[in-house]
Amino acid sequence: MEGIHLLGEWYGCPEDMPEMLRAEPLRTLCVKAVESAGLTIVGDRFHQFEPQGVTGAVILAESHLAIHTWPEIGSVTIDVYVCNYTTDNTKKAEALFQALEARFQPEHARFQAIRRGGRDG
Amino acid sequence: MEGIHLLGEWYGCPEDMPEMLRAEPLRTLCVKAVESAGLTIVGDRFHQFEPQGVTGAVILAESHLAIHTWPEIGSVTIDVYVCNYTTDNTKKAEALFQALEARFQPEHARFQAIRRGGRDG
Repeated sequence: MEGIHLLGEWYGCPEDMPEMLRAEPLRTLCVKAVESAGLTIVGDRFHQFEPQGVTGAVILAESHLAIHTWPEIGSVTIDVYVCNYTTDNTKKAEALFQALEARFQPEHARFQAIRRGGRDG
Repeated sequence: MEGIHLLGEWYGCPEDMPEMLRAEPLRTLCVKAVESAGLTIVGDRFHQFEPQGVTGAVILAESHLAIHTWPEIGSVTIDVYVCNYTTDNTKKAEALFQALEARFQPEHARFQAIRRGGRDG
């Protein structure tokens, strides 16, 4: 259960980009980014807020990606959590996180990387 | 986007409980616990690993619950993340977390509460 959890809060993102506003473009972006990072999708669920904004999760064999957008304030929060149960997935998690950040282009970001679990509990 | 994120890793949980082994009992538990805590479900996705084990997420108007089980080692990881965008949901998040922990009865637990975001970014 040892793993790494990357948490981001992004500010100053373009408020009118499709991935900020609508569920399907955000889902497509996330699925492609997960696949490009070499992580394994086992399901996803995205919800469209009206008139705009999205919350969603891609559940992974390695744990999950969760993302929430607030177009009204140009902000996004993101979680990438991967377990390193059978192999070290840290670099894949970092690649996924960075790919999404590159797309949203925040003017300002907060970032935390949290170590979780461990072999001794 | 200010919010609270509760992260848990639980060890020594009963390996044979239905919620540890199978997706549907875990989904039912999570949905009921979210509703009891007064949070708002907008979708969910749970995946059954074979022969056993589950990964899933309940996406909330307030952000998300994510949970992963490892029956082979009696362990669970859990995330409860709520934004306090329009109201302080911290107590609801804590109630949800505690309800699930009470059900899984870990012998040993790791816990972190992470403050996210903030009005100034």
